[in-house]
Amino acid sequence: MIRNDNIIDGKALSNTIKEEIAAEVKVLVSHGERAPHLAAILVGENPASQSYVRSKVRSCEQVGFQSTLIQKEVDITEAKLLELVDQLNKNEEIDGFIVQLPLPKHIDEMKITMAIDPSKDVDGFHPVNVGKMSLGLDCFLPATPYGIVQMLDRYKIETSGKHCVIVGRSNIVGTPMSILMSRKAKVGNCTVTLTHSRTKNIKTELLRADIIIAAIGYPNFVTEDMVKQGAVIIDVGINRIEDSEAKRGYRLVGDVDFEACKNKALYITPVPGGVGPMTVTSLLMNTLKARKFS
Amino acid sequence: MIRNDNIIDGKALSNTIKEEIAAEVKVLVSHGERAPHLAAILVGENPASQSYVRSKVRSCEQVGFQSTLIQKEVDITEAKLLELVDQLNKNEEIDGFIVQLPLPKHIDEMKITMAIDPSKDVDGFHPVNVGKMSLGLDCFLPATPYGIVQMLDRYKIETSGKHCVIVGRSNIVGTPMSILMSRKAKVGNCTVTLTHSRTKNIKTELLRADIIIAAIGYPNFVTEDMVKQGAVIIDVGINRIEDSEAKRGYRLVGDVDFEACKNKALYITPVPGGVGPMTVTSLLMNTLKARKFS
Repeated sequence: MIRNDNIIDGKALSNTIKEEIAAEVKVLVSHGERAPHLAAILVGENPASQSYVRSKVRSCEQVGFQSTLIQKEVDITEAKLLELVDQLNKNEEIDGFIVQLPLPKHIDEMKITMAIDPSKDVDGFHPVNVGKMSLGLDCFLPATPYGIVQMLDRYKIETSGKHCVIVGRSNIVGTPMSILMSRKAKVGNCTVTLTHSRTKNIKTELLRADIIIAAIGYPNFVTEDMVKQGAVIIDVGINRIEDSEAKRGYRLVGDVDFEACKNKALYITPVPGGVGPMTVTSLLMNTLKARKFS
Repeated sequence: MIRNDNIIDGKALSNTIKEEIAAEVKVLVSHGERAPHLAAILVGENPASQSYVRSKVRSCEQVGFQSTLIQKEVDITEAKLLELVDQLNKNEEIDGFIVQLPLPKHIDEMKITMAIDPSKDVDGFHPVNVGKMSLGLDCFLPATPYGIVQMLDRYKIETSGKHCVIVGRSNIVGTPMSILMSRKAKVGNCTVTLTHSRTKNIKTELLRADIIIAAIGYPNFVTEDMVKQGAVIIDVGINRIEDSEAKRGYRLVGDVDFEACKNKALYITPVPGGVGPMTVTSLLMNTLKARKFS
């Protein structure tokens, strides 16, 4: 039996949210207010980073934001980059900004992140924002977790009292998701189990899950036999695997064996077109929020 | 069968650590350095707060720290209290300080906490410290979680690959413990399940635990039938229950039915004399650390 009614369409949802943001921007501007303004700093010529940043800038245009892309040579000094961050912190025309990671090795990423004014940290990477998230205070949520929360919310997926099993304990997805899914909130109130490379029997844990969040970066790690009938599956992985039939010689797969798990899932996100498109939406939502409170 | 060899003696361990700290202070002072200096702000006349603060000051004396107790009337304005915090931030003779909670209702506790210089925040309550903990960066850990980590470490309790079930999702114990027990660290690397009031079957979760951390504030909540043979049980609760035979008319019990669970446990903490005495030790360790990096 082929089912498609249980696929969470991240691309369509992202477009819907972008339309909502665009409508809000129109209202702002019609009241004589300045449109939200996002700046992005890109250091060096990493093709993946260039493509991410370009997509962020394009999304800004789509919703009527102003955007500024600041490109710097790969050999920029840490001091110069800190100076630039300081300028953006002080620039009242810019509501939020991001420094695209990874940075060249001679630059301390955490030092740069710590230098960003938390009220402009729309990536949600500054420890103050991470801490506020953990304390349940208002803050900028990091892009991927915020996107997942949006998905669960918009698809009206019940989370309260459910058992959520997270695979992977990274700082940018697994750990923040474990905090968000357990907090007292509309999307939240789950019993959360956080699993990782040291977990002894991941299959046993996953089979208990009402909601699976896979963020381990390993292609097709979650297989059908690890999934309970009726589980909600959120696949955060984006992995390239060789495919001689594909144009570029590879195709993208998630951390979940999508085809096999699809028929068991109450809801499942595809890769690509699932969590991915939602991350840019999160950035836009954070920038709009920064504009409102600036 | 009566067993006592599996009881984690928090009081004795706390004294051992105090002796180690006192020895370090002696070395510092013998090198002509200033002893660590902790200040505590106490607002109002809450008897429990007075007793906590007094015990903290006494512990400072025991280990050779300087201490300063600043008492303020219950009607101090928020502005005045912020001014005082600012003075302590700037005072180079003071390495760390705490503002004893709870504060009177006319004062915004988070505003006060946010005003403390994170490098002097030896309570580990500032969002920057909470965020750094979540990101696995060096920081001041909050007292109770730090005390528990110390206990597990000093008793050489293996945590890697174990299943740790936490009861309660508070900002000061449950949530930070879930982060600490899952991180990649000597005490850590657990598969962690965080349970709370919305968890559907806490017994089922607890029966799977190699390590139980109970921090829910409900007397004798964890009963023998919820505990697996050989589990390690850390009891964070301190609850008063009426006892007509006790001098004060009450006695202290934990969140765990100690007598019933003791014989099943590989290790168990008593109440009182378990986690409690470790929290002051954590504060001293944080203050010593603040002195070293000041």
